Amino acid sequence: MVHHEPDEATADETSISTQPPSYNPSQAPTVYKVGYPQKKNLATEFTNALRETFFHDNPLKQYKDQPGSTKLKMGLQFLFPVFDWGRTYNLNKFKGDLIAGLTIASLCIPQDIGYSKLAYLDPQYGLYSSFIPPLIYAAMGSSRDIAIGPVAVVSLLLGSLLQNEVDHENNKEEYLRLAFTATFFAGITQAALGFLRLGFLIDFLSHAAIVGFMGGAAITIALQQLKYVLGIRNFTKETDIVSVMESVWGSVHHGWNWQTVVIGFAFLAFLLFTKYIGKRNKKYFWVPAIAPITSVILATLFVYLFRADKQGVQIVNKIKKGVNPSSVHKIYFTGPFVAKGFKIGVTCGMIGLTEAVAIGRTFATMKDYQIDGNKEMVALGTMNIVGSMTSCYIATGSFSRSAVNFMAGCRTPVSNVIMSMVVLLTLLVITPLFKYTPNAILGSIIISAVIGLVDYEAVILIWKVDKMDFIACMGAFFGVVFKSVEIGLLIAVSISFAKILVQVTRPRTALLGNLPGTTIYRNTEQYPHARHVPGVVIVRVDSAIYFSNSNYVRERILRWLTDEEDKVNADGLPKINFLVVEMSPVIDIDTSGIHALEDLYKNLQKRGIQLLLSNPGSAVIEKLHSSKLTEHIGNNHIFLTVADAVRFCTSKSMQEP
Amino acid sequence: MVHHEPDEATADETSISTQPPSYNPSQAPTVYKVGYPQKKNLATEFTNALRETFFHDNPLKQYKDQPGSTKLKMGLQFLFPVFDWGRTYNLNKFKGDLIAGLTIASLCIPQDIGYSKLAYLDPQYGLYSSFIPPLIYAAMGSSRDIAIGPVAVVSLLLGSLLQNEVDHENNKEEYLRLAFTATFFAGITQAALGFLRLGFLIDFLSHAAIVGFMGGAAITIALQQLKYVLGIRNFTKETDIVSVMESVWGSVHHGWNWQTVVIGFAFLAFLLFTKYIGKRNKKYFWVPAIAPITSVILATLFVYLFRADKQGVQIVNKIKKGVNPSSVHKIYFTGPFVAKGFKIGVTCGMIGLTEAVAIGRTFATMKDYQIDGNKEMVALGTMNIVGSMTSCYIATGSFSRSAVNFMAGCRTPVSNVIMSMVVLLTLLVITPLFKYTPNAILGSIIISAVIGLVDYEAVILIWKVDKMDFIACMGAFFGVVFKSVEIGLLIAVSISFAKILVQVTRPRTALLGNLPGTTIYRNTEQYPHARHVPGVVIVRVDSAIYFSNSNYVRERILRWLTDEEDKVNADGLPKINFLVVEMSPVIDIDTSGIHALEDLYKNLQKRGIQLLLSNPGSAVIEKLHSSKLTEHIGNNHIFLTVADAVRFCTSKSMQEP
Repeated sequence: MVHHEPDEATADETSISTQPPSYNPSQAPTVYKVGYPQKKNLATEFTNALRETFFHDNPLKQYKDQPGSTKLKMGLQFLFPVFDWGRTYNLNKFKGDLIAGLTIASLCIPQDIGYSKLAYLDPQYGLYSSFIPPLIYAAMGSSRDIAIGPVAVVSLLLGSLLQNEVDHENNKEEYLRLAFTATFFAGITQAALGFLRLGFLIDFLSHAAIVGFMGGAAITIALQQLKYVLGIRNFTKETDIVSVMESVWGSVHHGWNWQTVVIGFAFLAFLLFTKYIGKRNKKYFWVPAIAPITSVILATLFVYLFRADKQGVQIVNKIKKGVNPSSVHKIYFTGPFVAKGFKIGVTCGMIGLTEAVAIGRTFATMKDYQIDGNKEMVALGTMNIVGSMTSCYIATGSFSRSAVNFMAGCRTPVSNVIMSMVVLLTLLVITPLFKYTPNAILGSIIISAVIGLVDYEAVILIWKVDKMDFIACMGAFFGVVFKSVEIGLLIAVSISFAKILVQVTRPRTALLGNLPGTTIYRNTEQYPHARHVPGVVIVRVDSAIYFSNSNYVRERILRWLTDEEDKVNADGLPKINFLVVEMSPVIDIDTSGIHALEDLYKNLQKRGIQLLLSNPGSAVIEKLHSSKLTEHIGNNHIFLTVADAVRFCTSKSMQEP
Repeated sequence: MVHHEPDEATADETSISTQPPSYNPSQAPTVYKVGYPQKKNLATEFTNALRETFFHDNPLKQYKDQPGSTKLKMGLQFLFPVFDWGRTYNLNKFKGDLIAGLTIASLCIPQDIGYSKLAYLDPQYGLYSSFIPPLIYAAMGSSRDIAIGPVAVVSLLLGSLLQNEVDHENNKEEYLRLAFTATFFAGITQAALGFLRLGFLIDFLSHAAIVGFMGGAAITIALQQLKYVLGIRNFTKETDIVSVMESVWGSVHHGWNWQTVVIGFAFLAFLLFTKYIGKRNKKYFWVPAIAPITSVILATLFVYLFRADKQGVQIVNKIKKGVNPSSVHKIYFTGPFVAKGFKIGVTCGMIGLTEAVAIGRTFATMKDYQIDGNKEMVALGTMNIVGSMTSCYIATGSFSRSAVNFMAGCRTPVSNVIMSMVVLLTLLVITPLFKYTPNAILGSIIISAVIGLVDYEAVILIWKVDKMDFIACMGAFFGVVFKSVEIGLLIAVSISFAKILVQVTRPRTALLGNLPGTTIYRNTEQYPHARHVPGVVIVRVDSAIYFSNSNYVRERILRWLTDEEDKVNADGLPKINFLVVEMSPVIDIDTSGIHALEDLYKNLQKRGIQLLLSNPGSAVIEKLHSSKLTEHIGNNHIFLTVADAVRFCTSKSMQEP
């Protein structure tokens, strides 16, 4: 705490070097002591900690001082936002939703058929997953722009994880049942995370890692489509680029089917061109949106008229007609497959969440409305649980379709309802028409869809901003491309965690100096003209001091001191008598931290150096006090600002010549 | 960056409310801009990060500008400190070491025999482990006070982990071999951690968790000894307090052997009394030190003379005579046991390290010398690897014996050599004399030894300082006492990690206010008299902004703003036009963090609120710049201090009435 005894005051006058002109004691500012917060009891402390961890968004705020009936109504609206926006729904909004809904429907139908192939499932399951889940999300979800349905990356991940357990060709039925089991547990996971308000767990996949993973997955998916676009019959089951390329070149002379190649590449060119148009001029967004369905129709007609299937052009053949059958009885609730299904479900569920929440947040910021991550997860979870019982596989928010939905001017989740109605119609009436649809066209549609996931601009930005992030990004990317989706995911997660580990164990510290003519003390690396105060070393610790870093912090501070002492001895400057630890950034400390400080203090005592603390935060000063450390160090050695501490030092060194 | 246009200056005059008297622009301080550090290239950045993570103690510093021969010599001294302190060794030091060595020897012999029982091993293995390992440590270790040998907790842990895999009664040989395998891998783990400089990993067991775990283990061990002290023959294999108590009371009427009880408790009382004496007066430290061996001799004589073993007093019977046989061929390098041995070895190795390093650090601070944690680990690892090949089980530093060693005035690791020589003598000559030693006495020796591990003072301090730590401590404690050592350890580790998780995902934020009459801005909770600046909200973020917390930080800042706006509207104060984010504690930011700030900025734009940044650190400003975010926010909205930012705000609000 700051004292201004007369002798100090005079000392100040003489020690101008560290005193800024605008800060002379004659008109000294009011004296402030380091504040002690009023002691909180355990209960409050604990509940505060819990609230900050799980309810930092304070979801119950609005319920305060409301009558019970209103509370109930609001609770219902909270769980089913449809009751909220539904009341203000009008024809105008419906127009927007209708157009958007039709657009994404035309986009999703061919994608669904293709994606279900990625998951080694029959085409109808893709369509099923675009019928029920969107309806449920529309009632429970809080994002207005997200488009629900199967997505490429999750389909790929699900497919390869399931394939590891059961072979989809030899035991088709088991494979299907495991798929539903996985979907069920994915839903449970998502709902549970949301319900237990553990949503923040998905933040543990770093943005950089996701970018890398998504890009890698996109490439892998695109490569998989070569099978259809080139019409190769015996294609590798591996997903890594090497073995795919081998089986592509291996079958170049006999395996390729030229009619298929023509169809595939012709339409791929067409799709990419429409994409380009849409990009160049936003008001033509609908061109790339309806292109896929158009090309499906054209290609199907073409094959039908010329019976190209006779020339070995592979076609979809039959898609089962009718709405989703129940699949409750197909989910494994007992037996060895439960565990496997659970493991796969958790993985896919998390990835699905990451994608959906990212989309939700993006568009929420664009239109400036808040979405509650945890609530979203409950909605997505419920949707997948119900889905798993109605023959759907994991559905989530799709990047590409959501963007289209947004640009097509959707207003509410009703656009998802429209889409699901169109899908229903398809299932009931027009599935037979897909008989002659060539697989090649689906392949090229998927390729043109996933290309958007390779976000090279983001990668460039990451490279510019943070090299470590870039390494994480590339690690995930190459992991997926050269090994497998699981490996890529593993790399992404472990790099993210390694980063946290390092961040927690190796906080930064900085040597501070005085900016001449001010009472401001700043990092000498960042401000080269900041001046060292003779006889004083000022170190700032840039993190809370916890058990995970307390030893490092202690050693690091001592190293700063030693380095400075070496300099001083070399230059024959006055010996160092004071070490000021600037604790402003140290917002918390635990028992290990306290011990580290105590050791530091003892160690300095032995060297005949006085330890001073500057601006400890409320939590810290409280704990320093309750551990009696303040008494060891001496209350008069704890200051509100570095400036005060330095003034104390200089005055002291004036007294002892 | 700070500008002082004339109109602002005049504005300053009029807006005294936030202007401290000592800070009027007429004599304004030199203008400082936020410093941009010179750009580092990837290589430097990367190597710096690596150095801070793995070589923060800069071990190679001393090798700089030395001739090759010296380098080699120093390298040798680094690996084998004996070459370092050996040269200055003298008779005087030897006296200290001799006394200390003899004392800890007398202490360790009975303990070793008892501890090997904890690990379900024959007594000689305990003695073996006090012969070879200390010798190796003496050559390689850098702590002068640590006493090497088997310790209670690790023995208990090893025993119960091994027992889970192999039963020590039915397949004794396999059990023994697995024990050596575990010891081998424990050594490998320790050496590897040290060699790869991953020593900081052991810091992930928080101090509080360790205190709880150790206390619980001590209680468990003491309870186990009841078997011997009460002479119960059919004793439970479980270690939890409930089943132990059951088998104690269950056998109260027939199972107890009164002669054993008498011996056991008589000597336990004696031992505790000597402990008390030693505590009361430090110069009698040797009383409790030699008490165990004395009581062993007395008890053995007593049993021998009165042939109490005929009255059912259990005795040690024979201890195998001779030095350590080789056990290289007994270690499993192939087969199913390798994995098991590895798992057990890693666990026990880590615990052993934690204990040894803790001891090393404690005494190093007491005598003020540095020990290199990673080097220690290499020493301990090598010692256990060699040990596993010479019929030793895991040895590490013992709390109790090290303390005695310290108090007995040891000067160098030579005291360990003396001890190991005494043990050698015991193995060669006097093992037969232990034939009649009653197990009861060993039991009471162990009880009196482990009682010291229940560190209630530390628990009280933890309770005072940090309630969360206290919960961790108790969790570990009760886990061990009521379930098992493994469970307790698991709880300890997971609580520690949960704490890190919360710390990383939920950094603190604070609302700042101005201390009247100064340019100082502080947390309004800690400093209740800090004044809000009208029309400005000042929030401080108390952590680096990474992917793991970026979303939380964004939302939390917005919540501060909303809360303030509510207050303002309620009190009819001027509307809020500026949000100042004080970034001093934000020492780093990654791409996710950049995105969070960008979203925050956009969101504020929509609300018509200007975002200002204060004092971003070097890493942060660099990344803000390279991501072009500085241009969005506007360079003139980034300030060196909160005071500057506030001056800007007030002047602006003066201009727009």
